[in-house]
Amino acid sequence: MTATTSIRPSTKPLLRALRSPGVMPPPIWLMRQAGRYLPEYRALRDKAADFLDLCYRPDYAAEATLQPLRRFPLDAAILFADLPLLADGLGQKLDYREGEGPVLEPIRNGADLKRLRLENVHRRLAPVYETVARVKAALPAEVALIGFSGAPWTLAAYMVQGRSGAEFAAAKRWAFSGDPGFDALIALLVEATVEYLDGQVKAGAEAVQLFDSWAGLLPAPAFARWCVRPVAEIVTKLRARHPDLPIIAFPRNAGFMIETYAEQTGVDCVGLDYTVPLVQAAALQAKSAVQGNLDPQYLVLGGAAMECAAVDILERLAKGRFIFNLGHGVVPETPVENVARLVEIVRGWRR
Amino acid sequence: MTATTSIRPSTKPLLRALRSPGVMPPPIWLMRQAGRYLPEYRALRDKAADFLDLCYRPDYAAEATLQPLRRFPLDAAILFADLPLLADGLGQKLDYREGEGPVLEPIRNGADLKRLRLENVHRRLAPVYETVARVKAALPAEVALIGFSGAPWTLAAYMVQGRSGAEFAAAKRWAFSGDPGFDALIALLVEATVEYLDGQVKAGAEAVQLFDSWAGLLPAPAFARWCVRPVAEIVTKLRARHPDLPIIAFPRNAGFMIETYAEQTGVDCVGLDYTVPLVQAAALQAKSAVQGNLDPQYLVLGGAAMECAAVDILERLAKGRFIFNLGHGVVPETPVENVARLVEIVRGWRR
Repeated sequence: MTATTSIRPSTKPLLRALRSPGVMPPPIWLMRQAGRYLPEYRALRDKAADFLDLCYRPDYAAEATLQPLRRFPLDAAILFADLPLLADGLGQKLDYREGEGPVLEPIRNGADLKRLRLENVHRRLAPVYETVARVKAALPAEVALIGFSGAPWTLAAYMVQGRSGAEFAAAKRWAFSGDPGFDALIALLVEATVEYLDGQVKAGAEAVQLFDSWAGLLPAPAFARWCVRPVAEIVTKLRARHPDLPIIAFPRNAGFMIETYAEQTGVDCVGLDYTVPLVQAAALQAKSAVQGNLDPQYLVLGGAAMECAAVDILERLAKGRFIFNLGHGVVPETPVENVARLVEIVRGWRR
Repeated sequence: MTATTSIRPSTKPLLRALRSPGVMPPPIWLMRQAGRYLPEYRALRDKAADFLDLCYRPDYAAEATLQPLRRFPLDAAILFADLPLLADGLGQKLDYREGEGPVLEPIRNGADLKRLRLENVHRRLAPVYETVARVKAALPAEVALIGFSGAPWTLAAYMVQGRSGAEFAAAKRWAFSGDPGFDALIALLVEATVEYLDGQVKAGAEAVQLFDSWAGLLPAPAFARWCVRPVAEIVTKLRARHPDLPIIAFPRNAGFMIETYAEQTGVDCVGLDYTVPLVQAAALQAKSAVQGNLDPQYLVLGGAAMECAAVDILERLAKGRFIFNLGHGVVPETPVENVARLVEIVRGWRR
């Protein structure tokens, strides 16, 4: 089965929708579809020593990846991992603290870059590749496996700031300062991301998604330099190794810059946050596939409000190259039955 | 002097720039120009019993408003107050807790609205009007006085959520639910905002700004309903009372929707957050004046990076209807000398 699907990837609806308009019903997966809203995820999380253990133990991480697939007929599994793992792979000390999320020993200047080692990435992240392989072996034939990484700007934001919050002011100031040290950090992250995603693809990922969660913190010229250009480089380098690899990127809150992003990065599909109006989303479909963009609060709410918002998206976007998704991740307070209903709405869609 | 300026408001550069393109040098003021980056503000804050005391004592609030004007040749003073004061004026219990910001007893449904009383607004907010009058009397002849209020959606977000953070999920869900109670809350806030700004104008404010700080949390249809439409109603109602009143609105992170906002609200000037690309900003000048949009982190950074970013904005926008400002408020760690330098750059601009 694995051999067949890697020779003919286009039999999977999600992979077809990246290249062909109007795949019916439109494929669906959800950002953070593996996560705290699922009781079985919370049980697994309690078994793991800590969050890093959950990410780095292939048995746990594969289980977390597969859990939502057992409940819902989704079109993709997305590798269970976390953005800052690549920083850890490069040798930056990473810790998860209760109620605070990832905490890194901050990189603040060119000299600090000496702490990072590209050559460590594959060895340290080998357990992630093992997770990918295990998931691939266990996946239903119609379900695509998406690998992922943070995009360089968002990774740099965490690595420089050291933790979430404060609008990543230290990272922005270093980026704005003109210091070549920041260029060097981004260049290193381009290489590291290519290696990391290459490792995931070799282990069985059939598409990859780059998360640029903090793209919306940059003014346009900085966005062009730190979000568009590095992703374009990653696309070129990955395509040199894997010419047919579908690449999705999610530049959250890119605003007006999303058009430039779709034109200049060369990605196959742009993930849309929930603020992108559907008229602009439809216009983007001339340049790339689009993925999105239901506000996750509709999924918490459920009922007619969720149904209307989902149908609105389907009516405007399903005739183009389109993957249904949220405009941000599933939130922990989401009722499981609302996820089931949303998948049913999208699965049942015909036009 | 007061009489002269209210008969001929157009002698003040900021008021002229709202209606006429290419005012040279372009007028400048800064969001949060009164605030923690100023040592004299911190001293004043320490004298006040708490933050509410600082806002509600006209001697303190007027002093806070005037402090930045003593240091920098700015073109406007903006009333020192805080968004949630209007909720307090309506009778919702408001508290400021150290390190947490405003905390309100949440309004969660139509029944909770009975706690709010429009008729209380003028009596409870009379000290704010007194602050406006004191500032007006003390202001240099060339400096305009800007009154302000939160826009209905952002006020509602605080009033429903009860505090900042968590992406105002409860407020969004109520807004998305279709419950007429949320429409009633917004309708009440439209009326309350009109009364509050009317009170400020009668006390001497020469222009007003509506802050929609959380506009960027809404998908496009919700943005049209909860950000555009209520502000359009406020504009119509305020203009019925004050036909020449200049109205500025700042829909932060509106993304693509900023064009619709400029077209449909009828405001004189749209405040631009730092993500709005200058090419779109220049296009907006055909529809309204624009104000913005330097990233406040450039002001922390100073030096050549700040100068280049400021000059870029001036080159692209100063020939249209334009007020120089930041794309978000001054942050506490801003060096005072960088603010002085920025004002000097804008003051010295000729093209």
